[in-house]
Amino acid sequence: MRAIVFDRKLEFRADYPAPVDVPGESVMRVSLAGICGTDLEIARGYMKFRGVTGHEFVGKVASTSNPALRGRRVVGEINAGCGRCASCAAGLARHCENRTVLGILGRDGAFAEFLTLPDANLIPVPDSVPDEVAVFIEPIAAAYEILEQVHLARNRTILVMGDGRLGALVALALNGEKHVPLVAGHHREKLERLGSLGLDTALEPALHDRFDVVIDCSGSGTGLSRAVELVKPRGTIILKSTAAAGAEINLAPVVINEITVLGSRCGRFAPALDALVSGKLDPRPLIDGTYSLDEGIEAFDVAANPLNFKILLSAS
Amino acid sequence: MRAIVFDRKLEFRADYPAPVDVPGESVMRVSLAGICGTDLEIARGYMKFRGVTGHEFVGKVASTSNPALRGRRVVGEINAGCGRCASCAAGLARHCENRTVLGILGRDGAFAEFLTLPDANLIPVPDSVPDEVAVFIEPIAAAYEILEQVHLARNRTILVMGDGRLGALVALALNGEKHVPLVAGHHREKLERLGSLGLDTALEPALHDRFDVVIDCSGSGTGLSRAVELVKPRGTIILKSTAAAGAEINLAPVVINEITVLGSRCGRFAPALDALVSGKLDPRPLIDGTYSLDEGIEAFDVAANPLNFKILLSAS
Repeated sequence: MRAIVFDRKLEFRADYPAPVDVPGESVMRVSLAGICGTDLEIARGYMKFRGVTGHEFVGKVASTSNPALRGRRVVGEINAGCGRCASCAAGLARHCENRTVLGILGRDGAFAEFLTLPDANLIPVPDSVPDEVAVFIEPIAAAYEILEQVHLARNRTILVMGDGRLGALVALALNGEKHVPLVAGHHREKLERLGSLGLDTALEPALHDRFDVVIDCSGSGTGLSRAVELVKPRGTIILKSTAAAGAEINLAPVVINEITVLGSRCGRFAPALDALVSGKLDPRPLIDGTYSLDEGIEAFDVAANPLNFKILLSAS
Repeated sequence: MRAIVFDRKLEFRADYPAPVDVPGESVMRVSLAGICGTDLEIARGYMKFRGVTGHEFVGKVASTSNPALRGRRVVGEINAGCGRCASCAAGLARHCENRTVLGILGRDGAFAEFLTLPDANLIPVPDSVPDEVAVFIEPIAAAYEILEQVHLARNRTILVMGDGRLGALVALALNGEKHVPLVAGHHREKLERLGSLGLDTALEPALHDRFDVVIDCSGSGTGLSRAVELVKPRGTIILKSTAAAGAEINLAPVVINEITVLGSRCGRFAPALDALVSGKLDPRPLIDGTYSLDEGIEAFDVAANPLNFKILLSAS
């Protein structure tokens, strides 16, 4: 099958082996897949991943032993737990120590014609949600994870640091839940686009007020240090970026100002799908291009341009 | 008056000017004062402090306009707020942006014959609590602050990283509240002493289990990185060390494992004093020497020896 594969370097392959049937798992034919910051990092060697990249997708079940899934249009949670450990027993397969992660850890991903996931990971998509919306479910679930981890009181001031893909989706998700986040970034054009979607925006270097909650979607190693400057004493910083490897940070203000720093990653798909079905947010204005798998390497380059939001890959 | 003063270097002065009366503040004659890690850092230039060092003390009110305080034996909260800002209005003078801090920020400290603090900061000490116990109130309040910030369920496993002064007091405070922390450090002799006080101990490099809660009292810039290795996914790290200035840290596991990192600093004195009055903990076995002010420089050297716990200064 055709696939975008990382193996020391990123390349398109026309003859990558298609997945085989595995008990308890289904094979999906991928319809649409989305390129996110993690994919760009993997293409630079992050997680030492080897194989088919990509984890944001919507597809159709092509082969399954589960009659309820046969032929269904589905999205899929990307963490596949061992099913036997304490985390899995607690319903937290995404924290299982022996997990595989679609296109990130030990499991071929979504930038291909076919992929496999455990049946338990698959969620049918209602007909009212088109593919171009459903393909956003994974990062929107990551945005909703914030609301599952932290109670955000209505009167809290919220700053979303970063005008990239994830910052935009986090802000749209919060906005859909009647919060009024301020999105701050470095790209005037993108902030204007986000402003036209009803979001409050600001150029980040111009910020001087402090906020009750700062959500770091900057994708930058210096994000936490900047967040520490912008959060009130006893405030909360939510870290959504895995980019901060080897960052040099002065943690003294975290202690002195008794700041809470909360790591936040993947979320459950159910609340995100509810939001998409109810129309609380529409991510489609963020689509800046759809490429075929054959054009995948070019699509990665376009996605790496900081002026673009979401780039999709069509596997059909 | 006699005082230990930091001004580019630490020195004993026999002729430092005694404090003068200030409206709303009282002058205390210091009985006993304790040397803590922050004092050792200040002696290396931390906080760019200039003046009399020291902030842990018990003393007697020598001059006051408040009849209720006259002649009383007192301890004193070390943060003096402006009294006008939102933090002060919320009872959080210790987060006031314009605060002074005894012996740390803009206010002469406790390693002297006399010091001043606002009347509102002073708490009379019951006769049943001797000076050698009361002098520990500030670090014990810092230990109790953890219990005010985080609900520690009984079945959570708790690791205290660090067999120094603060680690020992945090572990004793938790133990006094019926938790069963494990104290881990690098000094076999000190761990044996803590073991003889009823605490569970372990050599830190030998640890391989993960804990629900890790309290970093290591005083080391690498403490957070080690804590990240030792905390369970979705666990909590409590940072008690301000030592991590400029530490190089890989934050990716904080995000991936959705760890909560909580800065924790000074605490209210009231719960700590209650614990001392009720005898829930007795810090006296941690005293490794009492020196006169004239011997203050030597006392700092002794306190800097990692094999010692608490060194006291007697101002009488």
